Amino acid sequence: MAKVVVDVMLKPEILDPQGQAIQRALPSLGFDEVTSVRQGKHFELDISAGDAAAVADKVAATLLANPVIEDFTVRVEAG
Amino acid sequence: MAKVVVDVMLKPEILDPQGQAIQRALPSLGFDEVTSVRQGKHFELDISAGDAAAVADKVAATLLANPVIEDFTVRVEAG
Repeated sequence: MAKVVVDVMLKPEILDPQGQAIQRALPSLGFDEVTSVRQGKHFELDISAGDAAAVADKVAATLLANPVIEDFTVRVEAG
Repeated sequence: MAKVVVDVMLKPEILDPQGQAIQRALPSLGFDEVTSVRQGKHFELDISAGDAAAVADKVAATLLANPVIEDFTVRVEAG
């Protein structure tokens, strides 16, 4: 049993309105030192068989990320 | 300039309908080996001054996570 983390982020050239909204809210909360915020998605998969990294890569490319506007990273955490 | 990653996940005892929806879609796409999927949020912050980990921790607790139902982790990646 492998635990795999997939992080999906908008490509750098794609506008991220969620991140911008957070960034604009921070100064009024006293966090002037945060100069950039980008938001993405985080998935934790349990994979029971096979090459966990390869399976997670295919799952991410097929279902978790939109390859037109998003990049993803796969990290095997245990197993 | 430090780059800090904050991952926010629903607590394990909280139902995750997004993750369940993904998990149910996977067998029909041929991914029978994925036994569990949970979805969370991933944030990448650039922090220009101070103790980046401490700032990110406060930002996460204040604005990025709902501590009633979510846990978060902070990881300083560079700087």
